[in-house]
Amino acid sequence: MSKRKRVAILGSTGSIGTQALDVIARHPERFEVVGLAAGRNVTLLEQQAARFHPRVTASVADGPAGLRAVAVDAGADILLAATDGAVAFDAVFAAVDAGVDVAVANKELIVAAGELLFARARAAGSRLLPVDSEHSAIFQCVDGEPPERIAGIVLTASGGPFWERSAEEIRDASVGDALRHPTWQMGVKNTIDSATLMNKGLEVIEASRFFGLPGERIHVLVHRTSVAHGFAIFTDGNVVGQFAPPDMRLPIGYALAYPDRLDDGRPVDALVALGGAREAAATALGFERPDPVRFPCLGLAYRALAEGGTAPAALSAANEIAVAAFVDGRLRFADIAECIASTLDAVPHDELNLAAVRAADRAARTHAAAFVERATVATATPERGR
Amino acid sequence: MSKRKRVAILGSTGSIGTQALDVIARHPERFEVVGLAAGRNVTLLEQQAARFHPRVTASVADGPAGLRAVAVDAGADILLAATDGAVAFDAVFAAVDAGVDVAVANKELIVAAGELLFARARAAGSRLLPVDSEHSAIFQCVDGEPPERIAGIVLTASGGPFWERSAEEIRDASVGDALRHPTWQMGVKNTIDSATLMNKGLEVIEASRFFGLPGERIHVLVHRTSVAHGFAIFTDGNVVGQFAPPDMRLPIGYALAYPDRLDDGRPVDALVALGGAREAAATALGFERPDPVRFPCLGLAYRALAEGGTAPAALSAANEIAVAAFVDGRLRFADIAECIASTLDAVPHDELNLAAVRAADRAARTHAAAFVERATVATATPERGR
Repeated sequence: MSKRKRVAILGSTGSIGTQALDVIARHPERFEVVGLAAGRNVTLLEQQAARFHPRVTASVADGPAGLRAVAVDAGADILLAATDGAVAFDAVFAAVDAGVDVAVANKELIVAAGELLFARARAAGSRLLPVDSEHSAIFQCVDGEPPERIAGIVLTASGGPFWERSAEEIRDASVGDALRHPTWQMGVKNTIDSATLMNKGLEVIEASRFFGLPGERIHVLVHRTSVAHGFAIFTDGNVVGQFAPPDMRLPIGYALAYPDRLDDGRPVDALVALGGAREAAATALGFERPDPVRFPCLGLAYRALAEGGTAPAALSAANEIAVAAFVDGRLRFADIAECIASTLDAVPHDELNLAAVRAADRAARTHAAAFVERATVATATPERGR
Repeated sequence: MSKRKRVAILGSTGSIGTQALDVIARHPERFEVVGLAAGRNVTLLEQQAARFHPRVTASVADGPAGLRAVAVDAGADILLAATDGAVAFDAVFAAVDAGVDVAVANKELIVAAGELLFARARAAGSRLLPVDSEHSAIFQCVDGEPPERIAGIVLTASGGPFWERSAEEIRDASVGDALRHPTWQMGVKNTIDSATLMNKGLEVIEASRFFGLPGERIHVLVHRTSVAHGFAIFTDGNVVGQFAPPDMRLPIGYALAYPDRLDDGRPVDALVALGGAREAAATALGFERPDPVRFPCLGLAYRALAEGGTAPAALSAANEIAVAAFVDGRLRFADIAECIASTLDAVPHDELNLAAVRAADRAARTHAAAFVERATVATATPERGR
């Protein structure tokens, strides 16, 4: 077991901070909380301190020196910058200068001072990691490829609560309306920003800083279900995108664990990110499960993979013979699968070396050819009655 | 300009081989053809040799020694293995043992002997690169992450020509029917394999070898438009997928250029991979473009990014003030954008250093607060007439 990563959090009582502590609490073997700073919610800060035992805590009342103590003096490997607005700018700059990695949930910081912060991080050898779901998405899609290979990126937007409303209706929208976000649970400022789409505007600037791209290569597309979060379009025409349920704990966990990934032991839940899409084909990616009855060849391949040894070689060789026989008019379409199944049953396949692969290939071809021969004779015989 | 990559091709006159030469011809500054081997189409092989001037050519008539000469003796940096079936197995093993990278389009090779081939490549320090679109997709999604972080992968399948047909109709399907593939242009064997879904079955086995995953972590989903080619589901719940038009030249070019990427100078074409989806929202990813009239904040962010300096800081500060005023009931929703635009007009922003960022932040807050003050007074005055 490797050493636990030491985490400090600026803004531990806010929406991102509490979700980060939730992630950390689920992975006590991987993370240790060394510093917590919060604003006015001192009661919650005290509860958090009692639970996570940080070396340093600070509240707004402690002033800039308190934030700095949490960001730098607590000895963190990674700082989560999750305060709103400009209050923590100096503390974050100090952490970066001290070589501490920073997971940045405070997008105003990147928007206002991103160019300066990235220059300082390069100089100090510290890493800046995105926490916004869209930037986490693109970070995962791009994964170290340089800006000159990226033709463009796409940030998705939920569209917010007013996407279907007229300009007239939007003009005088109430605070209550604006706070009713369709998919994400966020703080008040972020939720209003999502209603104006300024959230996405700030993210465009943030993306420009994180990925070194000019505005004309950063695209915004509205995607109501918030399942796809971002895409990278490469110069060679390939597009890579990221998908996840709208749960901020995923990008938070990704940033805190980077370059590793957490194991949340829920591959099935993870599939739901696509699976929800899959079940409701009309609203999302249009996926369907293959039908094993009409298409038995797929199941035969899984069978050969599970049986191992030279079974895949026999499968492939039998398939070559069967397809050629079908193309020559000597086998019915459905008999392709029958021929392969019969070959898998007949040809032994427990060994694995090149000589065994060649032997299985030959044996499978011989068996499959004999199957074709019998099928051809059967087809030519009227008694078969098709 | 770096040295050109030397490419040898086994199966140069086939579907994959000719498309590879098409890619190479479009990037003469990056690739040099050093070896070509083909089967019976000697006329086309001679035309290719006259155009690309390889050091070595061979046809089936030259026997195994000819294939080996192209694969090893031609001095290639990368070998494209694009023959069908088992004919080139020995030549590919010899190239791998000689430390030549191999782009593998011959999926039978990986299916029959993948475990052995990967072991030999590890021992010799050569790289095996996928050419199948699905495996190229997952290779791009996974990008070096180890199998223990991959909860599962999804290979997409077009479903082939018989997806909508009954079991009865499929049983006696004709060769002509089976060759009518809905989206991909491929050779005869691959097209029939696509109709039986054996194509996908072989790809499941191939994926197991390429990504070190057991069958139960390899999923197949039918996706009729062939725009999404594969997904990786990570243990932390993140899903990364790849999208591209159904054109084999993309995965071929990706494999040949790896770890670099080609520049096809067509970011707009690339966007079409998503864009086709975007326009027909009901059938694909459900994307829409944001409306700049109802949501002017997004345009203001692009403006601040383009103006640079401290403009993003002023934008963000003005937004904070405006959102707070809206939440307090002192600004109409639509006035948030007005307030920000007014601030961007008023606050100078040509410098960029931390002091200038702080000054712009203060100036923007002051201006925005004055805007709010005026708007509040105006709202309270009946003459404004709303």
